[in-house]
Formats: sequence, C-alpha cells, structure tokens
Amino acid sequence: MSTVDPISAATDGLHARSHLVDLEAPVILRSGARLSAVQIACQTYGHLSQARDNAIVVLHGLTADQHAAGPVRDETGKSGWWDAAIGPGKAIDTDRFFVIVPNVIGGSGGSTGPGSDNPTTGRPYGLDFPVVTVADMAQAHLALLDHFGIGRLHGTVGGCLGGFQVMEILAAAPKRAGKAVIISATARTSAHNTALWAVLRAAIKSDPNWRGGDYYGGPAPSDGLGLLAMTGALFWMSREVLEQRFGMAPLTQEPRYTLEPDFAVEAFLNTVKANAGMGRLDANSLIYLTRAIDYFDLARDAGSLAQALHGVCDPMLLVSYASDWRYPAAEMAEIAEALPAGTTCDHVELDSPMGHGAFLYQFESLEPVLRRFLG
Amino acid sequence: MSTVDPISAATDGLHARSHLVDLEAPVILRSGARLSAVQIACQTYGHLSQARDNAIVVLHGLTADQHAAGPVRDETGKSGWWDAAIGPGKAIDTDRFFVIVPNVIGGSGGSTGPGSDNPTTGRPYGLDFPVVTVADMAQAHLALLDHFGIGRLHGTVGGCLGGFQVMEILAAAPKRAGKAVIISATARTSAHNTALWAVLRAAIKSDPNWRGGDYYGGPAPSDGLGLLAMTGALFWMSREVLEQRFGMAPLTQEPRYTLEPDFAVEAFLNTVKANAGMGRLDANSLIYLTRAIDYFDLARDAGSLAQALHGVCDPMLLVSYASDWRYPAAEMAEIAEALPAGTTCDHVELDSPMGHGAFLYQFESLEPVLRRFLG
Repeated sequence: MSTVDPISAATDGLHARSHLVDLEAPVILRSGARLSAVQIACQTYGHLSQARDNAIVVLHGLTADQHAAGPVRDETGKSGWWDAAIGPGKAIDTDRFFVIVPNVIGGSGGSTGPGSDNPTTGRPYGLDFPVVTVADMAQAHLALLDHFGIGRLHGTVGGCLGGFQVMEILAAAPKRAGKAVIISATARTSAHNTALWAVLRAAIKSDPNWRGGDYYGGPAPSDGLGLLAMTGALFWMSREVLEQRFGMAPLTQEPRYTLEPDFAVEAFLNTVKANAGMGRLDANSLIYLTRAIDYFDLARDAGSLAQALHGVCDPMLLVSYASDWRYPAAEMAEIAEALPAGTTCDHVELDSPMGHGAFLYQFESLEPVLRRFLG
Repeated sequence: MSTVDPISAATDGLHARSHLVDLEAPVILRSGARLSAVQIACQTYGHLSQARDNAIVVLHGLTADQHAAGPVRDETGKSGWWDAAIGPGKAIDTDRFFVIVPNVIGGSGGSTGPGSDNPTTGRPYGLDFPVVTVADMAQAHLALLDHFGIGRLHGTVGGCLGGFQVMEILAAAPKRAGKAVIISATARTSAHNTALWAVLRAAIKSDPNWRGGDYYGGPAPSDGLGLLAMTGALFWMSREVLEQRFGMAPLTQEPRYTLEPDFAVEAFLNTVKANAGMGRLDANSLIYLTRAIDYFDLARDAGSLAQALHGVCDPMLLVSYASDWRYPAAEMAEIAEALPAGTTCDHVELDSPMGHGAFLYQFESLEPVLRRFLG
C-alpha cells in the first residue's frame, strides 16, 4: 500500500485534503472475484491527533461521493453533501476530529469502479467490472484505516448506503468502529428497494448513449440519468413535501391545457432531470452501487443479525425519520434488538416531512443528537 | 348521433355487446379545442329494461378500457379488468342491471384518441390530438346515455380515474347520475401524482421508437411502455405487498453476485415490463390520460368543491383503502364534507395491503359493500 501525495492543499479552517490510496493487491471481493489494482479516493478534514485516536469515518450514500464538506471544486460550485454536519464547530467538529470520507469501491469519485481502466485491457471496465458488495466497501475502508495508521476510530457514521457500510464495518471489525451512527437504514434491503433499483437501472439502460455500459469516450447517457433522477425524486421526497413545496401551483394563471409543463412540480422535475445529466454521477457506477444494496443482508453470511453484530462493544446511535417509509423505524429497531446484551444503544425517531433525504436536507433536528453522541 | 350495430354477439349469461357510437359533431372540449369526428367505444352487459331505469355506468381507470367483464377476446386471453364485480349474480348484477362501460375519449380501446385518424390529414393524430380533461370524458359519457335513451342512471361507479369521471358527471348532470360510487380517488389530483405522471411520460418518451408520438405504422414504443409499467408497479403495489409476495427471495439458492436478475422481485418486474409491451396499451393514449388527471380539479371551474357538487341528490358511496397512500381517506373525506346537507353518504375505509390496486385485485372486501349500496 502506498500513499499518493495530497492532491489539494488545506482549505481555511476545514483543512480539507484529497488522497488517492493504493490498496494491497489483489483485493478479493465477496463474490470471489479479484481486482488486481484498487485505488480508494478519499477526503480528509481536520488533523489526525498524535495518538491517532480522533478519527471519524463518514460514509456516503448512493448519489454522493467523498466530497462531504466545504466547497466542492467542480463546475457545480456546490458545498459538500453533508457540509451542514462536518466542519469547524459543527456536529462532526473538524477542530476536534480527523474526518475521513472515502469514496466507495465501485464509485465514480476516483475510487476504482466500472469507469476505471481495466489493467488487462487498458480500457474502462464498463460492465466487465465485478459486482461489489457493501462488505467489499467496508473491507476497503478498513484498509484505508491501515493506510492512515489508525487502529480504532472515534466514530463511524453513515446514512442509507453509508449506514449499511457502518453495519458491515461493525460485523467485520467491531473493535475498530468506535461509536457507530446509523441513519435512515435497515439491516437488510427490501423487495421494494430492489424493485426501485431495477427500475432506476432500466432508466439508465433506456438511453441509447448507454451502449451496454460502453459509453466511455462518447456522450454520457445523460437522458437516462435524468430519467433516473426524476424517478428517484418521487422516492427521496415524500408525497407531503411535494404537496407543501409545489401543490398543483400552475406556471401560468390559467390552465393552458397543453402537454408542455404547466405546473410548478413539472418545472422542478425538469430541473432535476437536467441537473442529473450535468452532474458527476456515473451511470455505470449507479448500476453497481444499487446492485450492492440489492445484495445487502447483514445476517446472510453470519447466519443471524445477532451473530453479525455479536462483537459490537461501543455505544451506538440509530436514527430513523417518521416520514422515511422506505426505511421504517421498525426495521431499525431490529438492529437494536440484535445487539449484544449491555450495549448502549439510542434509537432516536425524528420528525421531518423530508422523507429519506431528511438527514441531508433538514439536518437541524439531527444536529444536537449527533453532537451529543459523538461528544 | 348514429348507432353502429353491435360488433359482437352476446356471451352466455353476461350478454356482452360491443358498441361504437358517433357523437354529434363537433365535440367542444374544455380547452376550447373542437373535434370534428368523435366515436365512443363501449361494452354493455345485461339488458336495458323497458323503463330504461336499470342502467349502471362503470368507468375505467388509467390502464384499462371498456372490456370490464367476461373473457376479453384478444391475444392475452384474460378476463375483463373488473370481472370480479360485474356479471350474473355479482355485485354489479347483469341479471338485474344494464351495465355500460365506455372507453374514455383519448383512450385506445376504440374511442377517438391520439391513435385515431385526424380527419384533416387522414393520418393518426399523434401529439396533434388536443388535451382532453376528465370533464370532457364525462361529457362524452352523458352523450352516450342520450344515445341509449337513458335519462337517469341507476348508478355511476368508478375507481381512480374512473372515480374522477363519476365526480365530473355529478358536477355536470347530478340528476342523471343515480347512486354514485367513488373508489380510491380524490377531488383534486396531487403534486405527487403529477410528478409520477411526468416520470411515466418521460419513460415512454425515452424509447427511440416513440418518435415524438409519430410511431403509428412503425414499431410500437414497447420498451418505453415496459419501463412505464415497471415504474408504475412501484406505486400500484405497496411496499408491504412487494415484501409479502417476494421479499428478497433469490432465484437461486446462493447469491450469484451478478447484474442479471437474481431475485424473484426482479423476475416479476421483467414480466411486468414484457407484458406491457405486448398489451393493448397505447403509449400516446397514456400520455393524454395522465395529462387529463393533471388537470383534474373538481373545484376549479365551479369555484369550490361544494359548488361543484351542489346538485347531488342521490346517495353516495365513497370507498378508501388504508394502504392506498396515493389517495388517502382524508382527501376522500373532503368530498363527503362538501356534499349538500342531507345527502346520504357512506365513506367506507377498507383494509387491504394491495394499495391503489385493492379495488381491482382484492375485491372480496368491497363486494358486500357495493352489492348492498346498489341494492
């Protein structure tokens, strides 16, 4: 394993740095497939203490990457996806903690994925990339800790796919995870999720530019990504939020009786569609990350959830949102019930009309809970 | 208005007949557009009494047509979409009632729609067809009653888009509607619905075979219809039903870690996708029918819901399903509240895990309620 020098210099106060880390080859995946050259891209924020005991790993969800905090230096000019949570004086306080945000294996933020060059052909893998699992992501994260010389984390935090990764780290290396925070997740994906991913993958594949996954060097399948993003919006946002934000407000005073957009909610979806095509999301990467979720079942390999979590030895925080019907609190409660006797575990259920996106887009209610827990 | 002779002979007991009725020209739509030649296709079941006082109109939903009962004579070999409800001795008893099921204007069951020939060009309208509204559908249904010489119906029954049509009939001709049954509906569509229709229309348009709506004579946009059907399945079926029917049951004993279908729910969706492409649904027709729902707001033209419903003079039955989160009982209750004082109105909330499809696919619980109400 070797360290590539930081690509970017520290940012004011946040001390953001980019890293590209070579993992020891080969990486053997859960499927049995081997990858002969794997790199993991990650961002760090803050400073690692001399004792190397102040690190928190934050794990990203499906449509995000390692750029969690501060200004993201790309064409969008946006802040990182969890800038509300990570920074000097924030709940994940970069004045105190060394925050590591890795891009998952299979991702498109610089970690090895379907868009990376296949060493045996010199061309991007495309669909020749092997299926990765959430356990494979966790394995790569643990290798990253070795790289940074970190034995035990202060904390491990993630929502949705990030929460699944927290669980796989707890299963693989419970003594290294530190305080674990799992947000808007479940220990086992659902038929509804798998159906949703199948639909979103079909949306990508509907784009002739997708070319069976072999679109690198040509036009990206932006229309497919746009359709995926529009469809996804129906699930990330609850019925109530769409109603509150848009209702049936028309774009013009009187209905125009046209097939063109005539309502505010349609204009919004067109924006979602257009932005998805312009963004950094890689179509094949979304195919692989959603597939990883399909195979996520913490109990499968261990035989039971209790067995998978039997090594947990630090306090846990579970966060559910009442409006997040895709990851109901009742499923999260199963995680709490499966923990070893005596484990300190808080399961907090927060109110928010934002549904599955609440931990990202309405962070205020989670802020004090997270701050207190990471303490 | 002229009658075209029945296309098909009566079926055993059900006395099914097909009709194709020319409406008086021109039909002036809510948008102000005029259609110079409009035909309405409909099925009738049972016999009209001498007094012409035993007719019930049953109005179809988005993905259905006039073939509601008995064997449907097409390649699928299926029964009509509400065969559970309509027939000799059934809740809508064809031994007693003359049941009329019209295909909506804009539909693809033979009524004038985007696939019909535009008399000014001699070629199918495609997207030159004007936007139709639910009020336009109701207007056509009332013209159909004139054709059959029926002044007042015994009852008017519909679910979803069919329920919207019942409401527009109640607004336009309350004294003709008879006993009204509105199932799984609302008096005003929602932002979430409109967002869903926008996504489903985008799915159709993603298919290169759609050709801007000008696909007649060429290959149908089956892939787009398939994607629409897959996406729709996530909404017609509740999370619970998908979980109960499929869970995460794998297709093979051990996970294969493949991008190919590996779970039962994926195989199901592939079947949904394939069947949609083979079925009778016309892509452009779905574009127009979903657009009609976008413009559905019973109060808009009348000024208020109470004003729209002020002429209601017969008993009403409203049916909601607890699991149908797209058309919640609270919205249905607004209809009951808006009715004229003294109107007899039962609002029944039924349990079913089937969500929005419950009135079609789990008819047992509705059966006694509907039978008693129609009396």
